[in-house]
Amino acid sequence: MPKYVYFFGEGKAEGKGTLRDLLGGKGAGLAEMTNAGVPVPPGFTITTEVCRLFYKNKKRVPGSVKKQIDKHLHRLEKAMGSRLGDPEHPLLVSVRSGAKFSMPGMMDTILNLGLNDKTVEGLIRKTKDERFSLDCYRRFIQMFGNVVLGVEKSVFEEVLQGKKKERGIVQDIELTASDLRDLVARFKDTLRHHAKADLPQDNYRQLEMARDAVFLSWNNDRAIFYRRQYNIPESLGTAVNVQAMVFGNMGPTSGTGVGFTRNPSTGEKEFFGEYLTHAQGEDVVAGVRTPKPIRQLKGEMPLVYQELVRITQRLERHYRDVQDFEFTIQQGKLYMLQTRSGKRTGPAAVKIAVDMVQEKLIKPEEAILRVEPDQLHQLLHPRIDARANVKVIAKGLNASPGAAVGKVIFNATEAAEAGKRGERVVLVRQETSPDDIHGIAAAQGILTATGGATSHAVVVSRQMGKPCVAGCSAISIDEERGQFLANGVIVKKGDMIAIDGSTGQVMLGDVPTIQPDIQELEKGEYGKLMRWADQFRRLGVRANADIPRDAIAARHNGAEGIGLCRTEHMFFAKDRLPIMQEMILAQTPEDRKAALDKLAPMQKEDFKGLFRAMGGYPVTIRLLDPPLHEFLPKQGELIAEIQELRFSQGDRSVLHQKEILLDRVEQLHEFNPMLGLRGCRLGITMPEITRMQARSILEAACELSREKIRVYPEIMIPLVGTVEEFRHQKQIVLEVAETVFKAQGVRVQFLVGTMIEIPRAALTADEIAKEADFFSFGTNDLTQMTFGFSRDDTGKFLPKYLAEGILDFDPFVTIDQEGMGQLIRMGTEKGRQSRPDLKVGICGEHGGEPLSVGFCHTLRLNYVSCSPYRVPIARLAAAQAALREELKTKDRRPKTRRRRSKSSKS
Amino acid sequence: MPKYVYFFGEGKAEGKGTLRDLLGGKGAGLAEMTNAGVPVPPGFTITTEVCRLFYKNKKRVPGSVKKQIDKHLHRLEKAMGSRLGDPEHPLLVSVRSGAKFSMPGMMDTILNLGLNDKTVEGLIRKTKDERFSLDCYRRFIQMFGNVVLGVEKSVFEEVLQGKKKERGIVQDIELTASDLRDLVARFKDTLRHHAKADLPQDNYRQLEMARDAVFLSWNNDRAIFYRRQYNIPESLGTAVNVQAMVFGNMGPTSGTGVGFTRNPSTGEKEFFGEYLTHAQGEDVVAGVRTPKPIRQLKGEMPLVYQELVRITQRLERHYRDVQDFEFTIQQGKLYMLQTRSGKRTGPAAVKIAVDMVQEKLIKPEEAILRVEPDQLHQLLHPRIDARANVKVIAKGLNASPGAAVGKVIFNATEAAEAGKRGERVVLVRQETSPDDIHGIAAAQGILTATGGATSHAVVVSRQMGKPCVAGCSAISIDEERGQFLANGVIVKKGDMIAIDGSTGQVMLGDVPTIQPDIQELEKGEYGKLMRWADQFRRLGVRANADIPRDAIAARHNGAEGIGLCRTEHMFFAKDRLPIMQEMILAQTPEDRKAALDKLAPMQKEDFKGLFRAMGGYPVTIRLLDPPLHEFLPKQGELIAEIQELRFSQGDRSVLHQKEILLDRVEQLHEFNPMLGLRGCRLGITMPEITRMQARSILEAACELSREKIRVYPEIMIPLVGTVEEFRHQKQIVLEVAETVFKAQGVRVQFLVGTMIEIPRAALTADEIAKEADFFSFGTNDLTQMTFGFSRDDTGKFLPKYLAEGILDFDPFVTIDQEGMGQLIRMGTEKGRQSRPDLKVGICGEHGGEPLSVGFCHTLRLNYVSCSPYRVPIARLAAAQAALREELKTKDRRPKTRRRRSKSSKS
Repeated sequence: MPKYVYFFGEGKAEGKGTLRDLLGGKGAGLAEMTNAGVPVPPGFTITTEVCRLFYKNKKRVPGSVKKQIDKHLHRLEKAMGSRLGDPEHPLLVSVRSGAKFSMPGMMDTILNLGLNDKTVEGLIRKTKDERFSLDCYRRFIQMFGNVVLGVEKSVFEEVLQGKKKERGIVQDIELTASDLRDLVARFKDTLRHHAKADLPQDNYRQLEMARDAVFLSWNNDRAIFYRRQYNIPESLGTAVNVQAMVFGNMGPTSGTGVGFTRNPSTGEKEFFGEYLTHAQGEDVVAGVRTPKPIRQLKGEMPLVYQELVRITQRLERHYRDVQDFEFTIQQGKLYMLQTRSGKRTGPAAVKIAVDMVQEKLIKPEEAILRVEPDQLHQLLHPRIDARANVKVIAKGLNASPGAAVGKVIFNATEAAEAGKRGERVVLVRQETSPDDIHGIAAAQGILTATGGATSHAVVVSRQMGKPCVAGCSAISIDEERGQFLANGVIVKKGDMIAIDGSTGQVMLGDVPTIQPDIQELEKGEYGKLMRWADQFRRLGVRANADIPRDAIAARHNGAEGIGLCRTEHMFFAKDRLPIMQEMILAQTPEDRKAALDKLAPMQKEDFKGLFRAMGGYPVTIRLLDPPLHEFLPKQGELIAEIQELRFSQGDRSVLHQKEILLDRVEQLHEFNPMLGLRGCRLGITMPEITRMQARSILEAACELSREKIRVYPEIMIPLVGTVEEFRHQKQIVLEVAETVFKAQGVRVQFLVGTMIEIPRAALTADEIAKEADFFSFGTNDLTQMTFGFSRDDTGKFLPKYLAEGILDFDPFVTIDQEGMGQLIRMGTEKGRQSRPDLKVGICGEHGGEPLSVGFCHTLRLNYVSCSPYRVPIARLAAAQAALREELKTKDRRPKTRRRRSKSSKS
Repeated sequence: MPKYVYFFGEGKAEGKGTLRDLLGGKGAGLAEMTNAGVPVPPGFTITTEVCRLFYKNKKRVPGSVKKQIDKHLHRLEKAMGSRLGDPEHPLLVSVRSGAKFSMPGMMDTILNLGLNDKTVEGLIRKTKDERFSLDCYRRFIQMFGNVVLGVEKSVFEEVLQGKKKERGIVQDIELTASDLRDLVARFKDTLRHHAKADLPQDNYRQLEMARDAVFLSWNNDRAIFYRRQYNIPESLGTAVNVQAMVFGNMGPTSGTGVGFTRNPSTGEKEFFGEYLTHAQGEDVVAGVRTPKPIRQLKGEMPLVYQELVRITQRLERHYRDVQDFEFTIQQGKLYMLQTRSGKRTGPAAVKIAVDMVQEKLIKPEEAILRVEPDQLHQLLHPRIDARANVKVIAKGLNASPGAAVGKVIFNATEAAEAGKRGERVVLVRQETSPDDIHGIAAAQGILTATGGATSHAVVVSRQMGKPCVAGCSAISIDEERGQFLANGVIVKKGDMIAIDGSTGQVMLGDVPTIQPDIQELEKGEYGKLMRWADQFRRLGVRANADIPRDAIAARHNGAEGIGLCRTEHMFFAKDRLPIMQEMILAQTPEDRKAALDKLAPMQKEDFKGLFRAMGGYPVTIRLLDPPLHEFLPKQGELIAEIQELRFSQGDRSVLHQKEILLDRVEQLHEFNPMLGLRGCRLGITMPEITRMQARSILEAACELSREKIRVYPEIMIPLVGTVEEFRHQKQIVLEVAETVFKAQGVRVQFLVGTMIEIPRAALTADEIAKEADFFSFGTNDLTQMTFGFSRDDTGKFLPKYLAEGILDFDPFVTIDQEGMGQLIRMGTEKGRQSRPDLKVGICGEHGGEPLSVGFCHTLRLNYVSCSPYRVPIARLAAAQAALREELKTKDRRPKTRRRRSKSSKS
């Protein structure tokens, strides 16, 4: 029988910090702290394994587990000298979630469990504090009612506000014991009315129901959304922590707070946190009340403050990372309730990692692993242009750095919808709650009137890298009118505002922003971290760029070449589109050649620009792979125009032209353009296109080469499925090359390779590699074909697939290692069987996604290629993959770590 | 240095009959005959290997090969006592193609090579026959000019006709020596004029040019078309045979002919052939002159006839197969020029194979291997309905059996085009030539005015199973007027005629035909052969059938179950289409359910019909996988209608309805429907569809089960790419099953399996097989995704791919073993790793294609499923695959052949 429950308390824990898989982050932290002698209220952790059993077992906890829970509950009762349901010595516990990866505020918590009509009287007798005891009871009913019985929070809030109004008071704290006794009664009525249920008086039953509710909260909408955002597998499940209550609401010498050992927004080394006296934990993190900054605790309770600093600094040294901790002070005594590695913004992550190396707390390898690659995005966030003339209308807490500009929206769901439409919005809320997560994800930034910098919602904003100004008390929101007031200025829904999460400023209008100067960043911690990363990574990083401007940006971001230049993108320009249309509509090779001859000089200039920008680095140019229909008028529109011309007796010659055009558009129409006349199929049926492009590329290369500029063109044949297709196109390229070199009187080195984007190409890669100099996996198309998903059409079912867990992730974002990954592996291995030095890269959009980059590292690809702005992310992800692999094989290969030589080239 | 040239002659050959790969069929036959002491003029064979080198080496024969050729030429000269180019003793040779698989008339031949202005005089002196010598010379110039220098045949024909007109004669034979001398001069002028070249006088140069022309003819249009028809790999190449000439044109005791040891049209055991006296070989087979039946030779040259019969019967016994032979009689002496296994019609193939078993010439296993599976089609050819009132207008040779009805077309290219449009045509020609092959392939049948039953074109017709009436001298064709005259009846282009290739009759009008009675066939040789096949095959054969009528046909043809019932096909019926549209257009699950409820009882009845027809055999039913757009009006048409209604101020309410419909059609529009909301994606987003279908299937099964009819439903989930999709749908089916069984008070056994048609499904088959009871490879879609080809759109490039050899075959017809085959193998092996008894079949259209069936056998699939009419073909192909495999492994496993037990079931 496996062990399903782990005890902690009385200076010793059954679990330990390394058991996060099993105990969740919170449970592992509590065990570790207990073992380290930190004052932690005792309790026990029900493992994540039970959560999985729960879901397998029709959402019921199996009997065998229940027995273990009972055993540990008895042990807890013994340790506390009290018993659940004992009217004289009632045990009160908290019931909290805790998954392997912390998901702040996404799942549910119930405090003060153990109260009923009888035990509350016992608590009064024991604590001699009727007000406190009744406050606990009403809080319990509120949380139990919401979490377990599903009554909206606002319902209780209304009853509470009603009572306060009747009594003419403002603060909860002004409620007297008899007010609270009345409130308990009203809450019980509320339950009966809204949940059609009485509050269970059996405390054991309460515990079971609370436990199951926490398990169920693993699958609430917020949690699912969060997991999808952060690629957390659905299968992990959450643990449940049952822990003896300590009380921050036992009068002025009691309190509760949360904090960080360093500033999670900027990374500065400063003790950072917030607390409330006479309050329970949820009051601080739920964002309802704006708490006090932690430095005030130094004045209020100096001894407690000292102990807190001592303990948390010890924890930081112990865990060798910034700690995010929760504490409660019960009548002057400090208890630690949680410690975990602190969520932080991108800039803070970089600074903390580099600082800790300098403090000799960690090694550069660890620093690299401490920064989520995607977080680097935030360093490259736009900032408010310092030269702009801005109107500051309010100032709040600088809760998450960066500038955000967008329309004011007061509702998370509306923000999410506007975001889907591609609109920029700033979500403005009285306070944010975890329910708003979808709106936060869609907004450019978040502005809240109340709530501190440690509230769950702000923690999540920081993690997502969303600029946030919190606790901005200068604004008052009137949702009904759809506006807010800030120092006399009325801002309406839909108005543009800007917020600066680094300064806390709120500004009016569409304030101009500027890109951060990457070269400036290179001088600071960012530069240091990236240089370390480059030393450790083995995977090359290139960029996808079609125009010189993007190529230059790519170089600045550290790209070591262009992995994909999509030549068809060169033809969308206004002056070129008509010629491109002419080419596509041509009925004879001669007409087509005439159009191509017009395009050729433009292409050549484009290529020269790219080669110049990439001087010394390879440039992979993909031959034309246009979605033909995108260059042509729509059939439906043409039909409507023609009918109109017919009926309105319009210009006959225009009508005739339109009819001819329609005819050709219909001729070119494809049922499934994605599987139609594309890529090399076009080059094979119309070889004149391949000839023109090869000539433009090689002439450009020759001309620059004569100017002593180094060029490395790599010509890529798209959509190859059989080696014969490749051979056909390569033959044309080689013939053109000989002609060009003869005419130019100079030769340049170049490669001819192919994209592997058709399953058959991966399956027959051994054959293709006999002919091809390099492979580049086109993972966008390969995903389409491997899944049989048209990217343009997945909107009709993919959301449902993700919501129902039929897919754990969007395969167009993250490489499907299990399925398509087999084709990439096969393609690489078979290719290298035929040609051991085959250069292999990927150039789909996955090339800048960290998990996918890691997979490419594992497969020993030569490089990934991604958008210029994701190049730093790919570099860091590549370094992490190399380090993780090294960690895994350390035992087998001691001291053989290879640093990547600077001169190595992808 | 490999051996590139093989000598034969003087009773001994360097090669032998088993070297067909290297020497081609003709070369191997000549070697074998020489070794067997058959009189064969000496010569040598240049191997197919040289053909491959020729194409690799820029269409030049490498120097090292040339040396070997020279050496063997000297040997031949020595054997013949004459020399190429020697004015006194000139050697004359024929230069002929000869590939591994014979391709009658598709490639080129040059006779009488060795003549020039000087040697022709030598020949005159030697033979003392000026007329004969000059006739050889003019024939040589004609053939060399056409084959090597590319001058159209008709150009020479015109000059020849001109000369005859001048001289007022009709037959070639009436030309005198001086006429021929003049003709030689005119032909040389013709060459100069049309080919801008003189006839090379160097006979060695002539030989080189002729040899290269034969190699080049491997890639002429006819040869490419033929190879594509018969799946002959382009890479094989042809050999070239250089052989001393013997002359059938040396007067009345000379002649030439071709024949078969049995009747190739009916299979009857009778000596069959044709000959011409005073002629060269090409005269017989080119179809220009109608030759004499071979029985006349018995009277004309009894000794020669006897020897011919003796030799060819010996050859038949030696090769244990019908021989197709060519012979020449030079002044009373018989020479054999070729022997090869004879092409025959399907009925003949079956009869000969079964007869030979009864004659103890071959074993049943060999008989099975002697019939091309596709030939069985011809046995199932329609025949003229004996009860019909027909008007016979002419009678010719019954050259290839079967009835054909179609419009008269006089031109092969026109016939090919009409065929593409789906029209039925009968190609009517003065004579057919191999150039007509594309027209023959497209026509229902062929009617010729001249030419015998052994002409190349008729041989090809027979092989293709096209009914043919040849040498129908009663008709005279006037192409200019577009008509032919037959016994006073004028038949115009486009008129319907019927021909009966079994009787030689030509009939007027759209004569009714009837399907042959399969049960009648079962009683004859066909039945015998099929019963042998069933004993040897290990692969099950099922049919794809959607309606009871097809299911019954499938059973008659020997299907052992239904492998694919496409439920969407049940909804194309007129009374169901509107309900289906209603279902698709439904905006809510409720509306959809309402439509589904109307469809449910219809579905149930359909299923009952299928189960009844298949009583005792399994029926695989695929859940809905409709191409949604096929059930809806076209967008373009709707737009046009709406515009018209708008401008014509039409009915407002109709307009409004159309607008709503357009709106919905546009909502449902997909960019790539093939990769869109299909298959299980539909069932997952609209589970009510799956529920309705599962209920209909299982209710039908239960109801029949209560009637004591055995039912084996296999429910198939389409388009699965991930195991989670399958799990989702299976869950619904299982839930529905429980409900149905409870309501019906009876349980039936059923399976839930999936189609493997998405590459990802094959890649993750191990996971899917943990849940699925069976796999069925949907090779149509799998081909689409593996190649990235939309079947509806390949018309834009696939013809070019096939023509240029980028693909050797159409992967939608024959399984691409090299590429997609890997996925089928992987899917099967991985699936059986998880579930060793996993039932695996295929149900794409490949299931009835012999090569693909063979592949499925190799992979140890349980069954193939194909159209009901291809079931016999699949049965035979499966038996052949089993026997071929046994032959291969015979040495390793002596005497372990397992006959398939009759009771085994797929």
